[in-house]
Amino acid sequence: MSLKHTFNQHETICAVSTPTGVGAIALIRISGKKTFDILGKIFVPAKKIGIKKMPANTLHYGKIVFGQETIDEVLVSIFHTPHSYTGEDLAEINCHGSLYVQKKIMEILLASGARLASPGEFTLRAFMNKKLDLTQAEAIADLISSTSKNAHDLALSQMRGGFSDKIKQLRDKLVGFASLIELELDFSEEDVEFANRDEFVRLIHDIKAEVKALVDSFSQGNVLKNGIPVAIIGKPNVGKSTLLNALLNEERAIVSEIPGTTRDTIEDTITFQGVTFRFIDTAGLRKSANDIELLGIERTYQKIEQAQIILYVIDISQTTVDDIKSDLADFSEKINDPEKKFIVVANKIDQLVKTPVKFRELVELETIFISAKRKENINQITESLLRSVNISDLSDRAIVSNIRHYEALTKTLSSIESIEKGLHEHIPTDLLTTDIRTAMHFLGEITGDISTEEILGEIFGKFCIGK
Amino acid sequence: MSLKHTFNQHETICAVSTPTGVGAIALIRISGKKTFDILGKIFVPAKKIGIKKMPANTLHYGKIVFGQETIDEVLVSIFHTPHSYTGEDLAEINCHGSLYVQKKIMEILLASGARLASPGEFTLRAFMNKKLDLTQAEAIADLISSTSKNAHDLALSQMRGGFSDKIKQLRDKLVGFASLIELELDFSEEDVEFANRDEFVRLIHDIKAEVKALVDSFSQGNVLKNGIPVAIIGKPNVGKSTLLNALLNEERAIVSEIPGTTRDTIEDTITFQGVTFRFIDTAGLRKSANDIELLGIERTYQKIEQAQIILYVIDISQTTVDDIKSDLADFSEKINDPEKKFIVVANKIDQLVKTPVKFRELVELETIFISAKRKENINQITESLLRSVNISDLSDRAIVSNIRHYEALTKTLSSIESIEKGLHEHIPTDLLTTDIRTAMHFLGEITGDISTEEILGEIFGKFCIGK
Repeated sequence: MSLKHTFNQHETICAVSTPTGVGAIALIRISGKKTFDILGKIFVPAKKIGIKKMPANTLHYGKIVFGQETIDEVLVSIFHTPHSYTGEDLAEINCHGSLYVQKKIMEILLASGARLASPGEFTLRAFMNKKLDLTQAEAIADLISSTSKNAHDLALSQMRGGFSDKIKQLRDKLVGFASLIELELDFSEEDVEFANRDEFVRLIHDIKAEVKALVDSFSQGNVLKNGIPVAIIGKPNVGKSTLLNALLNEERAIVSEIPGTTRDTIEDTITFQGVTFRFIDTAGLRKSANDIELLGIERTYQKIEQAQIILYVIDISQTTVDDIKSDLADFSEKINDPEKKFIVVANKIDQLVKTPVKFRELVELETIFISAKRKENINQITESLLRSVNISDLSDRAIVSNIRHYEALTKTLSSIESIEKGLHEHIPTDLLTTDIRTAMHFLGEITGDISTEEILGEIFGKFCIGK
Repeated sequence: MSLKHTFNQHETICAVSTPTGVGAIALIRISGKKTFDILGKIFVPAKKIGIKKMPANTLHYGKIVFGQETIDEVLVSIFHTPHSYTGEDLAEINCHGSLYVQKKIMEILLASGARLASPGEFTLRAFMNKKLDLTQAEAIADLISSTSKNAHDLALSQMRGGFSDKIKQLRDKLVGFASLIELELDFSEEDVEFANRDEFVRLIHDIKAEVKALVDSFSQGNVLKNGIPVAIIGKPNVGKSTLLNALLNEERAIVSEIPGTTRDTIEDTITFQGVTFRFIDTAGLRKSANDIELLGIERTYQKIEQAQIILYVIDISQTTVDDIKSDLADFSEKINDPEKKFIVVANKIDQLVKTPVKFRELVELETIFISAKRKENINQITESLLRSVNISDLSDRAIVSNIRHYEALTKTLSSIESIEKGLHEHIPTDLLTTDIRTAMHFLGEITGDISTEEILGEIFGKFCIGK
């Protein structure tokens, strides 16, 4: 997306802001200098008030017309610059949600001097007009696409400015540090012994600790946003796909309670009690693993490495305890990570007449006995998944969940480590200023105090139309 | 749907009114006596105004909370009884269009004392509160589902009361007629010669003509609403499906111009320049017709009978002029209806090196030469389809497009014909009153002046959620 082309603040933009499709109501948004002029041409309010005399934050009933033709009866919301989402004059047309009406009103708006908004262009204008910073804009996109409580809470907290404040504090500390350095430079010719070199070290140490905490929070943030990675593994025909489907069904039964909010199926992502589990595609393993020894395939291993939880599925009707124990021993030798949670799922209990005595030993391995086919005991797996998760409270911490922020913070950290090293090695303070400037640059990139067309294009291009 | 169960006007109802799915914005509607009480529990406006002090038709920025938890930052629209869509106190929450947010706000509303609205329940309340009559309510459902200009214009005109007015005028005329009859009855003992028996005849004749015009308009109304029935017929492998796909592609290229308004594909329905063509499934014909003589199958014939336009497809690379002429002669003998438009489509011109001389004769049959495969000359077919249509101006006529109205009008007509017959046969006027009452009853059913739970359940059950 070329922003030069699409981002012209003199133009008035419009878009359908509600989800695509047919519904009771659709909302069409218009923003820009000509909003009320355009509205004046096509909107006939039931009460004869001029558009420009309508007070801010009021709703007006009337009809949308095009020449002699009436298109729809609508409600129009009026917002005045700067107190609107974009900071510009803005109106929302609340029309009947037929595809024909939506399309027709859009056509009329385009014919009356508005331009079709690019994805995220309303929010881009809000950013340009300083209604929000870049992390808040990104949080809005995250909020809209969030399907779990964790992802939602994370996005909402970021949208409300928690994360920006943290970054601004860090930047302020760096500014403070930089001014102390400047002070030393000013006096450097006097060759005075500086008591505050220790203070420099302490200050930069604190800043580093805070940046590092943010960088380290990314793995948790990523999990909160994208889900906890779970691998379902096992030999062929033990029922891995059936288990995944049974888990998906378990979720759908919960989410489809309220009509009109049925979620789009995001393949292999399941949310229980606000926690999302992301099932890693281990197709490679599924196909090739006619023996657990075949696991050595690099790609499959990497996938399992990514997993935080491993569901190891066995066919209880076909396997002996010794088989399982030997497989597990082999397996745990190869995947040696005490942080990974390992759950043994003994499937196909429906094919056993009764639990044989020899499987008692399995119970000691904390095995869950299920029938994926008959959907028996699936809830024991979801409970076990939820127990495996230890997510700390989000409300009092800034957590990085955006890869762009993570990368900028990693670069910031690297500059700060370079400053710290310089201080330890007693290099002249004026040589530190480049690193300070670099660190401040990357922090500024996060909030958008420093931004390029490329960054903006990247961020807003991912938005949905109408936001 | 039992209305006794669902329609309790003391309850406050809520629903997501925007299309299902993810979008920039979603709207959640709340209506009923407790609307502002419920809103008071969950909405914290940025400007500290009590919900009940907010003026009608105003918008308020703030956050939706549930206990200590913030769910979203939203805009809330306030409408006061009776000046709202439902006629009740009503609010609309304009929230971020994530599935999580929509679901969560709905859960909070339900937990705070609102009930999930049944399909069409907001409009049902508008009807019960006399904000609109039944034909207008039905028109709203039609408007929302309309995908063509004709269907839209028809629904909008009906929604704006044009059709209701016509029915009310007819009812008024019947009331006038009834009171004249009463007058005669009052004086009947005096055995006076009544000059106004001629007036009765004239009056009932006029009423009959108007009702009949409405009944007759149904075939046109149905075509406007559901599309002009077109049958594509021909021998196997002449390219009927390829042609249908080429026509569908032609349409999609037009409708997908504006992002965010891409229509859901309604199979075999195509709209050009606001006119919808409905392709009749002639699968039976397609399979069995290895010879045109096999057309005799009853079911297939019935389908072709329904068609207003027949596209007769031939494979120009495989057929001789004589074959075609003989087929067409046979065909037109069987389907003998001068009202049907017959278009010969000579497909697979891509398989001819050049148009052979002998096909000149075909051109005289008004044949369109195409290549469905290469999408050549498809526009000639759409132009021919559009030329075949002769739709009169809708603005100055009441057109019946709803089968319920059609049935009630047919029954009304039957009663009126019975009255007319009675007048001709000079039967005592007091015997006419039952028929008059019956006619008035059916007209009243159309507008909903007379309604049953069953009728209401039938009508509103077809609405989408949130309207």
